[in-house]
Amino acid sequence: MKQTDIQFDQNGLLRHFLTIDGLKRNILVDILDTAENFATVGTQQVKKVPLLRGKTIVNLFFESSTRTRTTFELAAKRLSADVLNINIDTSSTSKGESLLDMLRNLEAMHCDMFVVRHHQSGAAHFIAQHVSPHISVINAGDGQHAHPTQAMLDMFTIRRHKKDFTKLRVAIIGDIMHSRVARSEIHALNTLGVPEIRVIAPNTLIPPATDSMGVHVYHDMEQGLKDVDVVMMLRLQHERMQGALLPSEHEYFETYGLTSKKLKLAKADAIVMHPGPINRGVEIESAVADGPQSVILEQVTNGIAIRMAVMSMTLGRQKSPEGNAT
Amino acid sequence: MKQTDIQFDQNGLLRHFLTIDGLKRNILVDILDTAENFATVGTQQVKKVPLLRGKTIVNLFFESSTRTRTTFELAAKRLSADVLNINIDTSSTSKGESLLDMLRNLEAMHCDMFVVRHHQSGAAHFIAQHVSPHISVINAGDGQHAHPTQAMLDMFTIRRHKKDFTKLRVAIIGDIMHSRVARSEIHALNTLGVPEIRVIAPNTLIPPATDSMGVHVYHDMEQGLKDVDVVMMLRLQHERMQGALLPSEHEYFETYGLTSKKLKLAKADAIVMHPGPINRGVEIESAVADGPQSVILEQVTNGIAIRMAVMSMTLGRQKSPEGNAT
Amino acid sequence: MKQTDIQFDQNGLLRHFLTIDGLKRNILVDILDTAENFATVGTQQVKKVPLLRGKTIVNLFFESSTRTRTTFELAAKRLSADVLNINIDTSSTSKGESLLDMLRNLEAMHCDMFVVRHHQSGAAHFIAQHVSPHISVINAGDGQHAHPTQAMLDMFTIRRHKKDFTKLRVAIIGDIMHSRVARSEIHALNTLGVPEIRVIAPNTLIPPATDSMGVHVYHDMEQGLKDVDVVMMLRLQHERMQGALLPSEHEYFETYGLTSKKLKLAKADAIVMHPGPINRGVEIESAVADGPQSVILEQVTNGIAIRMAVMSMTLGRQKSPEGNAT
Repeated sequence: MKQTDIQFDQNGLLRHFLTIDGLKRNILVDILDTAENFATVGTQQVKKVPLLRGKTIVNLFFESSTRTRTTFELAAKRLSADVLNINIDTSSTSKGESLLDMLRNLEAMHCDMFVVRHHQSGAAHFIAQHVSPHISVINAGDGQHAHPTQAMLDMFTIRRHKKDFTKLRVAIIGDIMHSRVARSEIHALNTLGVPEIRVIAPNTLIPPATDSMGVHVYHDMEQGLKDVDVVMMLRLQHERMQGALLPSEHEYFETYGLTSKKLKLAKADAIVMHPGPINRGVEIESAVADGPQSVILEQVTNGIAIRMAVMSMTLGRQKSPEGNAT
Repeated sequence: MKQTDIQFDQNGLLRHFLTIDGLKRNILVDILDTAENFATVGTQQVKKVPLLRGKTIVNLFFESSTRTRTTFELAAKRLSADVLNINIDTSSTSKGESLLDMLRNLEAMHCDMFVVRHHQSGAAHFIAQHVSPHISVINAGDGQHAHPTQAMLDMFTIRRHKKDFTKLRVAIIGDIMHSRVARSEIHALNTLGVPEIRVIAPNTLIPPATDSMGVHVYHDMEQGLKDVDVVMMLRLQHERMQGALLPSEHEYFETYGLTSKKLKLAKADAIVMHPGPINRGVEIESAVADGPQSVILEQVTNGIAIRMAVMSMTLGRQKSPEGNAT
Repeated sequence: MKQTDIQFDQNGLLRHFLTIDGLKRNILVDILDTAENFATVGTQQVKKVPLLRGKTIVNLFFESSTRTRTTFELAAKRLSADVLNINIDTSSTSKGESLLDMLRNLEAMHCDMFVVRHHQSGAAHFIAQHVSPHISVINAGDGQHAHPTQAMLDMFTIRRHKKDFTKLRVAIIGDIMHSRVARSEIHALNTLGVPEIRVIAPNTLIPPATDSMGVHVYHDMEQGLKDVDVVMMLRLQHERMQGALLPSEHEYFETYGLTSKKLKLAKADAIVMHPGPINRGVEIESAVADGPQSVILEQVTNGIAIRMAVMSMTLGRQKSPEGNAT
């Protein structure tokens, strides 16, 4: 059994959403199509659908992130689920309770889903391996490993603008090495059939096995951006600056920051993406971030739809035995 | 265009609620009348109306206040809205995200209202100037500038007891200089036609332009309280004591504290108000705070109705294009 | 009037739930029977009943406990109530507001129930003595005094496994002296007619008046566990270790820890209970905690049903004047 098979139940339906790696194209397309149905909920007079009424969704955040927690909380509430926010720093794990005992307790309270964010790679997988059959786990970012809902909202945004993945040239710029976003995006782009994926970064920020991921490595923005359809900027992690892996912010911006001038190298209708929050003047110029080619805020909007899709697919699945799948 | 025009949409309907200053009498009366309708919700078996179901209201608190946050959260929940509490100290602004980027993101998530509390005067205005057309902003207290829902709940409380504003003599006692509550109350009392507004405070706590606000300045409780209908105490900010602007708490109480004896100078049916939380024995004697003339707890109750009124007026307004205004 | 009479209204119905001490058998059975009705809600497709819709329940936690707060929050949400979480460390009491003023304010906002957790014994009683007639108070643990919902979920768990309380031999093991759980359990077991209650602990952890509580004291696991039907372990409070009341953790486990070997002394069908969170290898061996006789996770599940029962009984009671009691 493959490691990623854990994401599916015995009927082959998506039970957990932990990583893009290993998922087939039809699953990704299914998520995108389902999100398309939810994309209009946010603009309705009543921004709510009753799909997950009476379900309990737990935001289990071992790493604080108001922004990510907010998007999952909103997605859950718009599906009419009840939401529990548990910040682990202040929880009873400080009383010495083990993670597994804590999970067992939340399960015993008939919680239905854990949305997990953790600073350690593999944390969401570990949790998924140990929960009871009725629980679904969504990875909201684990260490430097994966951030699959971020990747899918990016794919959703690309599809809305570019329709056909199989004709695209996509560049990802920044700290590829430490980015769970980049890792998940590369898997998604590959699976959806993007023929040319480029990464642009200094040598120190390119992981060793990058070539084997089916991407082309560039160290130069002028060459890397040439004729691309999609420009995906990564957030610069300030903590990396201290590690001597990077030059100064100013120098980084000079070399790898996205400016209006550099953007002209891409196709005229190229879109500019960023997972946020953006560091203006560090990895991206304000004129670009706020410019006509930027789809950064659309990404945020689409993030709610994608999270609603993944939540409803994984939890709605559990209704099928009674024959009333959502 | 006047600075306060930002509070109205192009149809002249109340969109934001930032300050009393500049609002016409009919708007204030409209808020009071709407709150009258909500005043009974709190005593119903089911304390909920479905007016804002499916709306998302964000409590954006840059200054922590459990008390104020709680009243807005309750008002929103009783209108059936979904509530997000965001405490900015723990949010991603610490990751260096700018305030405007944070607002853009919350807008992109289709949030409908920001309830803003901030230690800087003008913060809610600034935010209102920068949000998208579908967003409403309510000022829940900005620096020393304004606290308009507090002022309106006070007006609501006065009207319930005194009926006609145009025959009242009202005294406001305490730190006028630093009080956003006093500033908003003076505007509201003036606009509603109160003919005689007095402020009673030491010279150091009277702002320079007070005379031009149409109030009479007193430095002496004996003269200032004489024959008033309404006694509005302010909360003593402890941090002012350290600034040498005030004598000791004991001395302050002797001079400006409200005692049963001093209260006898007011009319026999005068009501005593305080925005809370009260400092017993500092600005007010317990016998007065808990006495028959005190309406302090009624103010708290009325605060829910006023906040429901302002929320439903500003957000309900957005329904009018489809012809189903609340 | 007895001290515990405060728990009932003038019609003899349960208004507050503060302590088991003084409650009659029929009340406890009533709670257990009501919880039986709620036990299935957690396994329904839609885990919600509309009993307390429009009620406002405040979690007033003066002592942080994510675990306990979570169970009360879930119980309230599954009854469709609105929940406010107030952590007192961060609230306006730090502004110098007194507890009673804070309660008066929450009452004025038409809150219906306070779920109180406090490090001081008697805190929930104190609050119940001072709230308005329409408010109910539930004790979620006060100092070393009582934790009545924990005791009742334990009784519920015992009844489900053992049916008849009047034929049971129950042993409680651990720090009896400082345990509010033990105190509440002994009252409940006595009231429900358990003929033989044993406590097993070192002399330093047995409170002086234990004999008068109708229990048999053992200092030895071999004798104490002999032929019991129910083994109730207590959590070892780490802070006690420092107080020289206890030997080292290792030594404690050797003497009073529950191992598979010692458990064999109990009846073959004895059940093992623990209020959680468990200290594996300190008061209980993992093989026992996770073994076939352990009902520890059932206790957690039953805790939701018991809390729903107590909440609906105390708040639903208030509907009776209008003739539509729940």
